[in-house]
Amino acid sequence: MAESKPLPCADGDPMAVEALLRDVFAIVVDEAIRKGTSVSEKVCEWKEPGELKQLLDLELRGQGESREQLLERCRTVIRYSVKTGHPRFFNQLFSGLDPHSLAGRIITESINTSQYTYEIAPVFVLMEEEVLDKLRALVGWTSGDGVFCPGGSISNMYAVNLARYQRYPECKQRGLRALPPLALFTSAECHYSISKGAAFLGLGTDNVRTVKADDRGKMIPEDLERQILLAKAEGAVPFLVNATCGTTVLGAFDPLEAIADVCQRHGLWLHVDAAWGGSVLLSRTHRHLLEGIHRADSVAWNPHKLLGAGLQCSALLLRDTSNLLKRCHGSQASYLFQQDKFYDVALDTGDKVVQCGRRVDCLKLWLMWKAQGDQGLELRVDRAFTLARYLVEEVKKREGFELIMEPEFLNVCFWFVPLSLRGQQGSPDYDQRLAKVAPILKERMVKAGSMMIGYQPHGGQANFFRVIVANPALTRADLDFLLDELQRLGSDL
Amino acid sequence: MAESKPLPCADGDPMAVEALLRDVFAIVVDEAIRKGTSVSEKVCEWKEPGELKQLLDLELRGQGESREQLLERCRTVIRYSVKTGHPRFFNQLFSGLDPHSLAGRIITESINTSQYTYEIAPVFVLMEEEVLDKLRALVGWTSGDGVFCPGGSISNMYAVNLARYQRYPECKQRGLRALPPLALFTSAECHYSISKGAAFLGLGTDNVRTVKADDRGKMIPEDLERQILLAKAEGAVPFLVNATCGTTVLGAFDPLEAIADVCQRHGLWLHVDAAWGGSVLLSRTHRHLLEGIHRADSVAWNPHKLLGAGLQCSALLLRDTSNLLKRCHGSQASYLFQQDKFYDVALDTGDKVVQCGRRVDCLKLWLMWKAQGDQGLELRVDRAFTLARYLVEEVKKREGFELIMEPEFLNVCFWFVPLSLRGQQGSPDYDQRLAKVAPILKERMVKAGSMMIGYQPHGGQANFFRVIVANPALTRADLDFLLDELQRLGSDL
Repeated sequence: MAESKPLPCADGDPMAVEALLRDVFAIVVDEAIRKGTSVSEKVCEWKEPGELKQLLDLELRGQGESREQLLERCRTVIRYSVKTGHPRFFNQLFSGLDPHSLAGRIITESINTSQYTYEIAPVFVLMEEEVLDKLRALVGWTSGDGVFCPGGSISNMYAVNLARYQRYPECKQRGLRALPPLALFTSAECHYSISKGAAFLGLGTDNVRTVKADDRGKMIPEDLERQILLAKAEGAVPFLVNATCGTTVLGAFDPLEAIADVCQRHGLWLHVDAAWGGSVLLSRTHRHLLEGIHRADSVAWNPHKLLGAGLQCSALLLRDTSNLLKRCHGSQASYLFQQDKFYDVALDTGDKVVQCGRRVDCLKLWLMWKAQGDQGLELRVDRAFTLARYLVEEVKKREGFELIMEPEFLNVCFWFVPLSLRGQQGSPDYDQRLAKVAPILKERMVKAGSMMIGYQPHGGQANFFRVIVANPALTRADLDFLLDELQRLGSDL
Repeated sequence: MAESKPLPCADGDPMAVEALLRDVFAIVVDEAIRKGTSVSEKVCEWKEPGELKQLLDLELRGQGESREQLLERCRTVIRYSVKTGHPRFFNQLFSGLDPHSLAGRIITESINTSQYTYEIAPVFVLMEEEVLDKLRALVGWTSGDGVFCPGGSISNMYAVNLARYQRYPECKQRGLRALPPLALFTSAECHYSISKGAAFLGLGTDNVRTVKADDRGKMIPEDLERQILLAKAEGAVPFLVNATCGTTVLGAFDPLEAIADVCQRHGLWLHVDAAWGGSVLLSRTHRHLLEGIHRADSVAWNPHKLLGAGLQCSALLLRDTSNLLKRCHGSQASYLFQQDKFYDVALDTGDKVVQCGRRVDCLKLWLMWKAQGDQGLELRVDRAFTLARYLVEEVKKREGFELIMEPEFLNVCFWFVPLSLRGQQGSPDYDQRLAKVAPILKERMVKAGSMMIGYQPHGGQANFFRVIVANPALTRADLDFLLDELQRLGSDL
């Protein structure tokens, strides 16, 4: 008769469940939110992997643990995690902590449903459609389709799959061997998910043709046309061009109008990877960077990046109104998408995707948008541009800093040139020695916990820093600190 | 000089941020946790889509809203969402609300990092490896590889991609057109993600060969062998067999030992889709259902289903120790996976996946496991079996209920036969009339908000109910209620 009572959780009863969650929430507020976003606290608390393993005591054992032990574990997990909401976290294309988005995420987790049927996700089916509609309107479309994907890479893959299906619907059943050799086009500066996607989708990375980019990192439309003609001459069938709005390293925007013209001439699907740059559409001042985006067939846009909606919030937007998504991906599973339901089964959007269960990614963005309004979000974007400009000017002023180029966007790329290397540009081992600087400074800043900035070699250029100016909590003082701190950390080099 | 202060969020200052989150958390505790899991509250609050749209006021506008408005929105979102943690939510392969898992999810959201480098996810890189190691040990492997994926469908796709890459590494660069025609094998009872995956990966659904299942829904190994020989005779190259542990509708377990023998004879990759059934490995009493799983090359296992870890928690486990995942999916992006980092870059696991950013899915499972121990989780699994057995016996006792078959697992499938149809089996329109019963009862239960159960037609059989017995808070009384309620709702039919 043990089954006549609910299985006790480790805590015994519902009141204890609530008490546990309250305690955990208090820890989250103290450690992750208050300390995690305070400039008087560290961005990270570096530990060597071996030591961290011991501190975390990760092993999963036979016996459950006490409430006190578990709460201590929560504290430890947060303590040694990197604080991506911290104003001095410049390391990725996301940074900051939006309270309304976090509220939306906590609600999402507590509701724990899957975004596939109106039956079990009525609120979110309607909400996703509304949010996608808003994003499409910013692209410039009054109709269309779309879906939230688990990250921009998957959004990009979806676009490639949709483009080939639209051209060769038989691909779905018969596979790529029944098709002529296909070719897709993207610039050398594009995100690596394009070639990952080509491999995953069975196209092969060889069939991704690389189009030249100019010095600013922007695709050269004339070279695109050349590559298309070359592919055709070699017997391949071009079917898709991927243009990027906000490249990963340089933050470059491909010239969409000119690329759209080429696509139109050759009848190619234009996909715009605006995962990083899409949010600029909110700014009346800067949206000209994406001029022509309405001519795309599909757009990938990640509000979890510049808008700070929280990982992950990745929209794939489509101009299509012919139900292409469902035709391409659908398989009409009868246990889930019953056709004899008592409501309009067009509301069951799960068959648009190649996943089955799908997380709810719309609420966090919706709630943040309700709180900020278009105006609040526009302010964030505009302010990020202003702060990036401030950083650029400061970099130009300071000795020992060398800007890679005037940025179009929020990626501020520069070298820190230490004293021992200044004035030696042109000497035979200069690049080799310069390349070693960023990794050393990165190690020092992480071990100090003072800030985090990414670096990389790029297009033949030695390692340079890429500062991403995106956190809404950022001030000029943080950017001054950033430059001071690099000077301090590198003063002996 | 506006950039000398952080951008104010709608609430003004950090104290207001904390206060907002506290208020939201209080709403979550009241509405989602307390009411959402109480049998004296409804499972769902049905609204027609048009009415719900109005209630939600979804439109995103220019101006942000007040704190009071936003809190009311949070309440409304929860009110009209389905309570998947409710003991009477039997609709999907997940149900229930584990407080420790939810705690882990709230922490994950507050940390908001991406699981790709040790640099920004030190705790979670180590934790994921530990959790995967534990899952692999339960499969019976002392070494191997793995990764958490955004859902079981993607895990299954990964397995297919890995299998073809292992056999034909040139596929990654040259694509499927450079390969002979491939064939993969799965039973008619398998999850629809296998054919969705075949389409997405460019193989084509025609190249998924369907193997017969027996009356219990289990793959017939002799037919598998027959299909393999047939495919070979037709010039195709078999490369993968997908076996299922816990099929979606019937909960059947394919006979792994016999299937592994066939795979061994023909040199095929054996993938086991144990998304639903994998958690049975925790039960010493029932794990025999998966006998032979250690002979698989890959296993998909979703602890977000039976273990209640929260959507999504989907592990792909591999026997491989040759770094196949990274070789198959990697592209060595130099801006993210720098090779001159100051720590062991083998800890940067992001290149194992085709995504770039990846959510942290390990903490919620880890924290729950720390709280429950192997023993607590085993108890959950065993208890679910006991309750499913109880439900089966009750179904057999009651007039008007007809069991589809004795279940192996937690899917209890039966018809409710209303008074007007009893004793009429064999009459020409019996099936047609019976098929209409479940949709009517489903509509009634949803509109009453009393419970949610899935139904579907299956293999020529008219619509029947599939009750999933998985919620740890479930009692016999809930199952008695379920049957009483079906009788009540169908008394006039």
